[in-house]
Parts: sequence; C-alpha cells; structure tokens
Amino acid sequence: METALIKKIYRETDKFVNKEVKISGWIRTIRASNKFGFMELNDGSFFKNLQVVFGEELENFKEIGKYPISSSIFVEGIIVLTENAKQPFELQAKKVVLEGNSNVDYPLQKKRHTLEYLRTIAHLRPRSNTFSAVFRVRSLAAYAIHKFFQDQDFVYVHTPIITGSDAEGAGEMFQITTLDLENPPKDDKGKVDYKQDFFGKQTNLTVSGQLEGEIFALAFRNIYTFGPTFRAENSNTARHASEFWMIEPEMAFADLTDYMDTAEAMVKYIINYVMENAPEEMEFFNSFIDKELFQRLENVVNSDFGRITYTEAVDILKKSGAEFEYPVEWGIDLQTEHERYLTDKVFKKPLFVTDYPKDIKSFYMRLNDDGKTVAAADLLVPGVGELIGGSQREERIPALEKRMEELGLNKEDYWWYLELRKYGETKHAGYGLGFERMIMYLTGMGNIRDVIPFPRTPGVAEF
Amino acid sequence: METALIKKIYRETDKFVNKEVKISGWIRTIRASNKFGFMELNDGSFFKNLQVVFGEELENFKEIGKYPISSSIFVEGIIVLTENAKQPFELQAKKVVLEGNSNVDYPLQKKRHTLEYLRTIAHLRPRSNTFSAVFRVRSLAAYAIHKFFQDQDFVYVHTPIITGSDAEGAGEMFQITTLDLENPPKDDKGKVDYKQDFFGKQTNLTVSGQLEGEIFALAFRNIYTFGPTFRAENSNTARHASEFWMIEPEMAFADLTDYMDTAEAMVKYIINYVMENAPEEMEFFNSFIDKELFQRLENVVNSDFGRITYTEAVDILKKSGAEFEYPVEWGIDLQTEHERYLTDKVFKKPLFVTDYPKDIKSFYMRLNDDGKTVAAADLLVPGVGELIGGSQREERIPALEKRMEELGLNKEDYWWYLELRKYGETKHAGYGLGFERMIMYLTGMGNIRDVIPFPRTPGVAEF
Repeated sequence: METALIKKIYRETDKFVNKEVKISGWIRTIRASNKFGFMELNDGSFFKNLQVVFGEELENFKEIGKYPISSSIFVEGIIVLTENAKQPFELQAKKVVLEGNSNVDYPLQKKRHTLEYLRTIAHLRPRSNTFSAVFRVRSLAAYAIHKFFQDQDFVYVHTPIITGSDAEGAGEMFQITTLDLENPPKDDKGKVDYKQDFFGKQTNLTVSGQLEGEIFALAFRNIYTFGPTFRAENSNTARHASEFWMIEPEMAFADLTDYMDTAEAMVKYIINYVMENAPEEMEFFNSFIDKELFQRLENVVNSDFGRITYTEAVDILKKSGAEFEYPVEWGIDLQTEHERYLTDKVFKKPLFVTDYPKDIKSFYMRLNDDGKTVAAADLLVPGVGELIGGSQREERIPALEKRMEELGLNKEDYWWYLELRKYGETKHAGYGLGFERMIMYLTGMGNIRDVIPFPRTPGVAEF
Repeated sequence: METALIKKIYRETDKFVNKEVKISGWIRTIRASNKFGFMELNDGSFFKNLQVVFGEELENFKEIGKYPISSSIFVEGIIVLTENAKQPFELQAKKVVLEGNSNVDYPLQKKRHTLEYLRTIAHLRPRSNTFSAVFRVRSLAAYAIHKFFQDQDFVYVHTPIITGSDAEGAGEMFQITTLDLENPPKDDKGKVDYKQDFFGKQTNLTVSGQLEGEIFALAFRNIYTFGPTFRAENSNTARHASEFWMIEPEMAFADLTDYMDTAEAMVKYIINYVMENAPEEMEFFNSFIDKELFQRLENVVNSDFGRITYTEAVDILKKSGAEFEYPVEWGIDLQTEHERYLTDKVFKKPLFVTDYPKDIKSFYMRLNDDGKTVAAADLLVPGVGELIGGSQREERIPALEKRMEELGLNKEDYWWYLELRKYGETKHAGYGLGFERMIMYLTGMGNIRDVIPFPRTPGVAEF
C-alpha cells in the first residue's frame, strides 16, 4: 500500500473516509489506557496532526503505548469521521510498526518552552508547532516572491556572494581569505600580501547585489535577486542578523513611482499567497503569537498605500505635538518612533515616504531638481516601521561622480558601474526587501533569530 | 500611451497588428539611407528584437540614423505585418525619442567576440545574444526547480552560508573573519585567538547544506535547499568555480530508489519547462552552440534512466575491451572517461550507478548489508558525465560513529547530527544537483564561467 500524506487526508477527506490508508510519521503526543490509546501523529507534510486510535486487539498494543514522543512509526488502518469531536476524523489503527525509536530524554516534551531555549536546539525546534509554522510560511513566502516576479517575466539573477567591492560604500563586512592567519605572507612594505590570497586581492561577503542587479536590468529590463547578504555589525538586536536573505528587484525604463507600484503589488501578493496556502499556520500565529495579525495583514491587502514626501512627513511630525525621544528637524534620519507615529497614529496603513535629504541616503540615488533631496522611498508599515527601501538610480555620470567624490568613494572601484551609464543609460529604479523582516511581519514573530533556520549573530554560528 | 513589451507583441501579435504602440529599448543594429532606415530594437523582455522602420518624414530622421548601437530610445508607431520578410512584423515609426545616448566606443559591436573576451566585460555581456539566452534560461531553470518541489509540498530551506563545521569532512574552504589580518589577536600560546573573532570561533563558507537539510527533512519530511556553496580549490577547469549554486533535496521515509525517482522526474521537469518557456533561446543554442542539443535533451526526457550497480558498471567496463587512461578495477573512483563510456557508448541515455565502495564515498552514506558498499547513486548523463550525486543516509548511530572514527572526524563537531538519530530516526535520502552543471547541460555551453553572471575562480573576483 502506498503511503498517504496527512495533508492530503485533510484537504481531500472525502477520498479517504472509510478507506484503508498507510501513514508514516512522528508521534507528537501519546496516551494509553488498558484497552486503547490515542496518539497525535505528524508526518511533516502538514501543520496539523492526525489522531490515531489503537486498541488492545493489536498484538503489540502494550509496546505502542510506551513509544516515546518523537518515535517514528508506520500505521495502517481506516480513516473514520468523528462527529462532535475536536478533530474531524481519526485513523483507527490495524497495524503499527516502529521505524525509529526515540529516546525518553527527548527535549521537546509537551510542556511549553521559551523561544530562547528552542534556539539552543535548532536541530529539533522545526518539530515544534511554532517553528513548523514559521518555516513552512518562510518557504511559501519565498516561492510567492519568485512566482510574483516570474509571472511578470522578471529575470532572476544570482549576484555574487564573494565581492571585491562594497556596494553601499558603507557597512562593516566579513573578510574572506585562504591565507594562513597564523603566518600570512607579507609584501615588501611588511603588509599582508593579498596578491597571494585566493582571488589575488582582498575580498568580502556581499552586503547587496544591487549594483550588479543594475547591470542585468540594463540588459533584461526587469530583474530580481534573491540571495544571502551579510553585515558584520556587532549589534545584538531583535531585528538584525549577520546573515540574512534579500530580494532586490531592479527595473529599467522605470522611475520612483514604478518602484512603488511594484513593491506595493508584491507585498500584497505575498500576503495573499501565504494566507491562501498556509491557512492553518496563519490561524496559529493569529491565535498564539499576535492576536492583531489578521487585522493588520488584511488592512495592508485592502489599503492603497499612502505616499508622502519626507518634507511633508517632517511637517506632520513637527505639528503633531507628540513627544519624541529624538527631536524632529528637516534633515534628520527618521527613527522608528517617527515612522511608527506616521503609520500607526496618522495614516493607519502602509506608507511610502519619498524624497529624502541626499545627505542621509546612498550615493547611487538620483538627485532631485531641488538639488537637496533624492528620488528615494522607504515603505513603512504599521507595527513595524521600515519594510522596504528603494530609489530611482542616478543615471547621469556627472551627478554620480560628484556624489562619489563628496563621499570619498574611489571611482576606479566603480569603473563598470559608471561605464553602464555610458552605453545607453535609461531611467531605472529598484528596491530591497529584507526577507526575514517580511517573515516577521507575516507571522508576528518578534525576533529575527526565530524566522531563520540557523541564525548567525555576533558570537553565534552553531549548527 | 502605455509602453508595450516586445515579448507580448511576439506572443500576441494579433492584438497589435495595425495598432499604435509605444516601445522602449536599446538599439542592437541600425542602418539608414537617405530616405529611410532600419533598426533592431531589443527591450530586454524578449530574446528577439523588434524591427523598426523609420523614414525621412520624421523631423529627427538624420539624427536617428546616427544613434550609436546600444543607445536607448522610445519609439511610437504602428505594428505592420511583413509578408515574405525574415521577421513576421515590423514597427513603422512615427516618433523616435532618444533616452540615453551610447558612446561610439561601445565594446559589443556587431562582429563576433570570443567568450573569453566577453568575460572581461561581464557588465555588458548580458546584452549579447548568447548571454541574453544563457541568463534567461538560468532564471527559468531556477524557477522550474522551485516549482517542481513546491508543487509537491517540499519545504524550501535556507541553510546557513557561514558555518563552523565542514559538511563533507573534506574540501578546501574559505575562511571568514573580522580579525585584523595585519595584527590578529593572539592567545597565551601565541596562536590566533579566534575567541575574539566575530563568531567567537573559526568560521568558513559552507560547502554543502545537506547536514542541516537533514534536520529539516526529519521535521518536514520533504525539503530542498537552493543556495550558494563554495570551494576554495585552486583548480582552473571549465567545470569548476569557487562560488556556485546547489540544490539539495532531502526526503524522510525515503530510500535510494525514492531519491532516484525524484531526481529523474526533476531533471525531466526542468528540461520540459525550459523548452516550453524559452523556445527561442533553446533554438539559438541548438543552432549556434551545440547542434546535438535538442537530440540529447529529447533523449533524456523520453528515456527511462538506466540503473546499474557500481559492480556491474566495473564488469561492463572491464569486459568492454576499451582502452582507458585510468585502468578499471573494483574499488577505483570512476573517471569521466569511464562514465562517458557507459552513457555514450553502452547505454546511450542517462544512467544511475549505485552502490559504490564505501571507501570512495562520504561518511554519511548508508552502509549496505555487504559491509563494503554504500547506498549511494550518481546520475551520469551522455556527453557530460556526473550531473547529480546522492545517497541514502546512515541512520544507525553505531554504523555512523564507526565511519566517523575510520575517517578521523571529530564526533563532537557533529553532536547534533548524531542526536538527530536519537529522536525518531527514519530511513532518509537526498541528493545534490550543481545548478551550473545543469545550465551547461541545458544550453550546451562548455565553460562554467559562461553560465554564472559574475564568476569567481582562482584569481578572479571582478564585478
């Protein structure tokens, strides 16, 4: 008999009722009396468990009752509807065979564990309800992003992880080397001789694929990246990890409005896709992690995102009379308290803030005609703050070179980035979505360590 | 007027014929006489160009004729069918507006360039026919892989890039550090003090996500990874890169046959998906890169892949009478010459070779009852050799520990890998597909540097 998946039994129950099935899975809970017993079996295919009833007529009845939690078993039996019970159906076992015994010291017993403790057993936490839901949603959200862009013929680009340049002209980076750190080769000035390193020069882990993404946008028009990026910042917050995944779409013949339209459609698409394809998991988050989750996500899907300039935002904040830890003046970088005031108190929906002062933004953002702001936009969402950052890119070589000089960037390091603008430049725009931030937003999980399978943070590179 | 995409005009020509359209794109070729001119315009949305005809009635007719190749322009005009011409339709321009001028020294003029030269201008080569086709196929193949697994509810896992362990117990790795190499901190024995490094210990770039993938398979049943992996091997071949992408599916309650069935279905799915969604690009490869491509791919799609044991393969090779550079004896690792003899001369179709001697395979592969072979299988394909490697995993702790001891691996480094087997182990199996090798196979491209957007190889980390 072929093994049936529990997801299929839930989704197509009619096909299975009163029929024989064979199931394999892991015991989540088990209890037995003298004459019969119950267990909750999870087979990995679905968030929910299948209830299995086993009775004394089974020859190994006594042993079954003693199987430790997390043992893996095969069960053959009949699916029976259970009216008026908590679960809609159960499997009445005719045969139970042990595949892999579990040890009684299994750390994930039924009692609740803290998320902090579960991080120390990252090899087992995917078997818990919370992480089963988190990582299935993560997988579906990743696919939703691919589907959203592929359906519109965006080309997926793998930009390099190992890089000789610093894409943002800022941000601490991890160095990559094959030199022997105990005894690195030195040049004639007594400095480390990177000519002898693997790539013949100093290399780092990428902080962004955007600049390479622009190369592809100027060939394929609409492209996106989706890959890991790295920050060697020694900051232990609930929102920062040293290794995280980013999506960076880039569009030629596109301006700031095109970026905002695309990003808005993308966010709505991801939410709708996950709500539709993981209803049980989302119900779990709404019940146990964040009781306002559905309300917040529905509000996002059903709103036209607001769009105001930075200058308007500063006006609103100054006139608000609200007390902020960081006082508001034109020219400051908006803090989370300011962003959340705008989204949570004023607009009550997602909000693009556009046209920031050039001095607080990156060199590649397009200078506006006022000479002091750039065509950048951040997407702020209620309850969280910044979810997406993007801009129209500076396509004019003189303006770009001027900014690079002001910021002390070495133009030679960016020869190809400048050269792109020499051969048929077009208006173009793009943005970056931190994937983990999107998953936190989708699930209500409060710590980035709990939405990454094996998080890397200062001092932590386990598993 | 909204801008139309050239792909759409090709795919839904009827909707556009004799209608006004607006197009934006880059000039690929241009020639003009006194009274009219032609250009091939590519807008990035499609492999093929749109022919644009412009006449002396345009007020800027003289200037248009002088636009250098790769200039970006907007064109408004009417789509007209062109019977008996090479292209099925053309755009008769009513208005041509320059967006971004190109310099006359544009390196991608019409004449043919070598692939070697094009690698030095990786910021422009995506605009050439060959690389336009390669990177669009790469994007579609990536999506095909996601779709194949997601349609079967496999969970996509992002396994870590930065790792404290060496997944294969072999393979040279890149070290990651934030220590100052000019002056690294030392411990009291005079050795580099990695306690002061970013993660508090020595860390490397991953060579495989498999071991972490097994963690997820034992929770979600069927999972896959798709991410970058790294090898610091100083080998300059056409088939090796220092940074490449791998797909590593892992399945619980699965054995070697399940792995082979899944891998065979996946390979056929990818080929079919790309043939269907990139017919123009594939036609190009078959015409200009490898004239046997279609024949080979069709053979793969229509064959039941062969399955023989390593022992049978050795017998066949020994009895063949063929002369090999490396003599064949039971126990040797099969070389490409042997693999290709089996696929190209004997079987003439893809072939799984199974049950290799344990001494030439990894520690985590399941020992067969004969005590000398393991439940491993490599997929060999005609014209290439090995495309996929996989195995059933050793789930028995004593057998696993014995292999680790034989190979001198430190069991403490693998505490969680061993512990997985303590809490409800199941039979499980998985495999690895090198994504670039699949793209080479799909396109006929002979060098891995030409299927990676920005390749990293010894001495090379440009762009």
